Amino acid sequence: MLSEAAKGVFIISVTPFDERGSLDLDGTDRLIDFYAGCGVDGITILGMMGEAPKLAHEEAVAFARRVIARAGKLPVVVGVSAPGFAPMAALTRAVVDLGAAGVMIAPPGGLKGDAGIVGYFQNCVEAIGADVPFALQDFPLANGLHIPVDVIEAVVATCPSCVMLKHEDWPGLDKITAVRARERNGMRRISILVGNGGLFLPFELDRGADGAMTGYAFPEMLVEVCRLAGAGRRSEAHDLFDAHLPLVRYEQQPGAGLAVRKYVLKQRGIIASDMQRKPGARISRETAAEVDWLLDRLGESTATAPAQARRAAS
Amino acid sequence: MLSEAAKGVFIISVTPFDERGSLDLDGTDRLIDFYAGCGVDGITILGMMGEAPKLAHEEAVAFARRVIARAGKLPVVVGVSAPGFAPMAALTRAVVDLGAAGVMIAPPGGLKGDAGIVGYFQNCVEAIGADVPFALQDFPLANGLHIPVDVIEAVVATCPSCVMLKHEDWPGLDKITAVRARERNGMRRISILVGNGGLFLPFELDRGADGAMTGYAFPEMLVEVCRLAGAGRRSEAHDLFDAHLPLVRYEQQPGAGLAVRKYVLKQRGIIASDMQRKPGARISRETAAEVDWLLDRLGESTATAPAQARRAAS
Amino acid sequence: MLSEAAKGVFIISVTPFDERGSLDLDGTDRLIDFYAGCGVDGITILGMMGEAPKLAHEEAVAFARRVIARAGKLPVVVGVSAPGFAPMAALTRAVVDLGAAGVMIAPPGGLKGDAGIVGYFQNCVEAIGADVPFALQDFPLANGLHIPVDVIEAVVATCPSCVMLKHEDWPGLDKITAVRARERNGMRRISILVGNGGLFLPFELDRGADGAMTGYAFPEMLVEVCRLAGAGRRSEAHDLFDAHLPLVRYEQQPGAGLAVRKYVLKQRGIIASDMQRKPGARISRETAAEVDWLLDRLGESTATAPAQARRAAS
Amino acid sequence: MLSEAAKGVFIISVTPFDERGSLDLDGTDRLIDFYAGCGVDGITILGMMGEAPKLAHEEAVAFARRVIARAGKLPVVVGVSAPGFAPMAALTRAVVDLGAAGVMIAPPGGLKGDAGIVGYFQNCVEAIGADVPFALQDFPLANGLHIPVDVIEAVVATCPSCVMLKHEDWPGLDKITAVRARERNGMRRISILVGNGGLFLPFELDRGADGAMTGYAFPEMLVEVCRLAGAGRRSEAHDLFDAHLPLVRYEQQPGAGLAVRKYVLKQRGIIASDMQRKPGARISRETAAEVDWLLDRLGESTATAPAQARRAAS
Repeated sequence: MLSEAAKGVFIISVTPFDERGSLDLDGTDRLIDFYAGCGVDGITILGMMGEAPKLAHEEAVAFARRVIARAGKLPVVVGVSAPGFAPMAALTRAVVDLGAAGVMIAPPGGLKGDAGIVGYFQNCVEAIGADVPFALQDFPLANGLHIPVDVIEAVVATCPSCVMLKHEDWPGLDKITAVRARERNGMRRISILVGNGGLFLPFELDRGADGAMTGYAFPEMLVEVCRLAGAGRRSEAHDLFDAHLPLVRYEQQPGAGLAVRKYVLKQRGIIASDMQRKPGARISRETAAEVDWLLDRLGESTATAPAQARRAAS
Repeated sequence: MLSEAAKGVFIISVTPFDERGSLDLDGTDRLIDFYAGCGVDGITILGMMGEAPKLAHEEAVAFARRVIARAGKLPVVVGVSAPGFAPMAALTRAVVDLGAAGVMIAPPGGLKGDAGIVGYFQNCVEAIGADVPFALQDFPLANGLHIPVDVIEAVVATCPSCVMLKHEDWPGLDKITAVRARERNGMRRISILVGNGGLFLPFELDRGADGAMTGYAFPEMLVEVCRLAGAGRRSEAHDLFDAHLPLVRYEQQPGAGLAVRKYVLKQRGIIASDMQRKPGARISRETAAEVDWLLDRLGESTATAPAQARRAAS
Repeated sequence: MLSEAAKGVFIISVTPFDERGSLDLDGTDRLIDFYAGCGVDGITILGMMGEAPKLAHEEAVAFARRVIARAGKLPVVVGVSAPGFAPMAALTRAVVDLGAAGVMIAPPGGLKGDAGIVGYFQNCVEAIGADVPFALQDFPLANGLHIPVDVIEAVVATCPSCVMLKHEDWPGLDKITAVRARERNGMRRISILVGNGGLFLPFELDRGADGAMTGYAFPEMLVEVCRLAGAGRRSEAHDLFDAHLPLVRYEQQPGAGLAVRKYVLKQRGIIASDMQRKPGARISRETAAEVDWLLDRLGESTATAPAQARRAAS
Repeated sequence: MLSEAAKGVFIISVTPFDERGSLDLDGTDRLIDFYAGCGVDGITILGMMGEAPKLAHEEAVAFARRVIARAGKLPVVVGVSAPGFAPMAALTRAVVDLGAAGVMIAPPGGLKGDAGIVGYFQNCVEAIGADVPFALQDFPLANGLHIPVDVIEAVVATCPSCVMLKHEDWPGLDKITAVRARERNGMRRISILVGNGGLFLPFELDRGADGAMTGYAFPEMLVEVCRLAGAGRRSEAHDLFDAHLPLVRYEQQPGAGLAVRKYVLKQRGIIASDMQRKPGARISRETAAEVDWLLDRLGESTATAPAQARRAAS
């Protein structure tokens, strides 16, 4: 099960569709194999970048079943954020029965005050069961909700099943430092995995993050940056990351980013279609040309994934 | 099926739960009988005041089945607002198969620009099917989205299955006048039923609304105000409405209002429990005392529902 | 100076303009005389309903000068909310020099977490000076900011110059009860004056409010309701209030309400023009007819202000 | 005066304060000389990153006077965004009298519908005068307002004094392409200068932008990238830009970014203090170390500004 000791890269998986918008479950197997081959430590599905709200309940369960089965020993975390506790509980029960390692919950915008956020997570635990470990997703760019460090500490104190902070506040470096400082003053230590496209990954690792939970289309870079940082090879970690930064930045555009990510994964031969369900849309012709240009330049500048990158651009 | 000719009172039904928070389906029968006995012209379920997001898909379908079966010839409109099109389509298919007369859709906040809202409803039609009549719910107090009259006209023009405006903009009187003016200039005429607690109902009828789609705990007042206004007895309509206004105002408080409504329905003997699912909560002791006071005063001031009101306050 | 002992009605004054949109300073004298004649206990200017953001700094000071001079012994509270601390401090210094009794500050939307709101008010005190008493304006309908009771208590504890809560949360009755409960547990007692159009005034007084700070166009009603409630004549307070409620409700519409208020004040002969500066606008023809109707009915139902009300409707 | 032909780099100037938070007007001269020495084509002051809302009116005018006097022939654009039209008009009149080339206006959040945004800018023109050229600032990350291309076209059509789009939508590349496509179909051509930290500058120039209006602490890079792109040396433009991208990204963090920018400018010896007025704050110790690291790496990787960068890091 997911625990406070989680570290490394939990890749945020895309949800592959075919050209008609149906779930591509066979393609899902290939995608999971790819992620596993990149050396990730876990897989997170049905997050915001997994188009979770676009799936009906039965589809979500079917996708989770396929991923969990294919992932084998790799832990699978499932996003269960929902507008109400009953659907959240229903999805949680289903995926835990299938073998999910834990769930991830982003609170809705509009919660009232610090106490309102703490109370929300306590209600979540009541709904999903205190035995299901969960990651608190802190993503103000998506939901407009600021989660103070005070609130994180209170949730961790009152919800023993909160084992992870999915950190995507922005700016957020000092927040990681602040959480780790709280832990030195008695707060229970939790895992911190960073999202937000990984835009500050090497610095976030310096600040005390345990790894990344994001879905950049070159997971092997995320894995290697974590490895280098863990080995104390800071300059090399930055060098590798900075070689990818032009594309990381391009992929991290709100809304548009997922189309870029799916396009790159398709160009790399990993998914068959870059189809998104509405309201998502494929990238424009101009954007595709720019992404191809970035892939070309990435292939020239890095030895991480030259074959794939060159193939992508061909 | 729901059509542009819909008029009168489509009561927004509460969703009754028992004290443990389970759906009270037997109580649902009694509730629907009560609404029918008040003389309503239709019933709307699974709206925001129907705690729709708090129900899992299967629960929503079970509740809709029971209501539709009990309502008999009364048309039932079902709220199908959802964060994505797949769950919206799944619920729509299920309730249309059960005999729903139509559905109601509130767009999410955050749609971009006039074109973004129009496009959203076009996508809805694609998702639910062009043969399912729907009401466009315009409720900025709930979702922060302003829907200009230009947009309403464009949706009506491009979506033939849009047959109704559920109007709860606030302030909104001039908006009704503006929509009706558009219709005199060629826009297809649609039904306008007003929500927002009915706080301006007699004026809204003067402005051109066809009735109300709201859930005030004395539906018989809504029915009678519509009847009086339709008969040109304007002063009497206002007199009756104003006698209820102190309670209407009290019930229309955002968030807190549903607890008041359920409490009054319980006091009137119509539902067995005023339980709400979380994050809702019952009214405070002080609030209960104030509502009792308002019911007492209502019983003294009006001949509409004296028996029930006095019983409520006893 | 404004203190924790403030009570009664601090009327929110409109800002009168002539037909070209210039400040009507002579008309201001007549307006202030009218308010004083209604028996108010204080006057609040340059609030949101005083079109404060539409005035240049010099205009705001000129208006404050005129009001303070005319108000004589009546305390004048000045809204100094501003996007930054330097303009807030500049206006505060100017009006305190002119004799203002205190200032009112609404925080901006977007403050982060409970601590962010508390810190904001601490910064305000640093900017305006710890010797200037201020009212904390709690108005989420206007700025989207929820201010928890915890935050109010922390501001009161750390800012001795915070002497008043301008309460316009909605729903807000239980919040008044909660603040008063905190005071019984050691929080310094502050004055609570209610705004939000006074829509719940008699109940708010029951809950522990000390009076009203709102601008309903019949201030004499607000004064009399406070007097009756203070004398324990609860039913009479409600009777009088409920007679006005149809118009109170009409005037409390966000955005549109100020146009209604200015129209009524003009119809009553109190201000010469109901001009608003842009983006405000006069009421529509249909709205004017409805307000006239409400004034007619008010004149028939109440003895509070029959002469003015009848004149208004003539 | 500012015109549709504006191009190149209009640097967004910081507002230098001394350690007590007073305007550093002597330091302003040095800052403007630095910007001029970098080869910028214009200077923009009192934008969001110029801490405009934190200045009292008199301070804003004093700062504008100093900048305009020092800038000589370089055009100076002044941000005049304000919560109301009277203060906007007052500041505009003052700075135009001092010789400003034009003004920049960001609409407030909360405007209603496409027509509401168009009407807002028409009101602005009425307030500031049709003879004052202005830039429409499109910055949804700051104000939550999406401005559709339809609206931009309507503003340009109805407001001849709108000569520039300050583009900082995000994602925004396809928006530039869309505006330029409208121009090929009859829309009046306007200047497009990009902001948003310049995070996509080389691509934005490819898409049709005329330059940048942003405040990155190495203006010489922005100037050189524009020059290279203008000369068709695309790869070199990207190479130079990508060398700076790690720092550009770091500086573009909402809220925190200005502290980084002022810190770098201080490290480079250009401003004497990195003081911000509240609620701004200096960067943390950890952040300073990271910025120093980025400056070190920048000095090693680029020949653009090695001397300054090395000095900065020493």
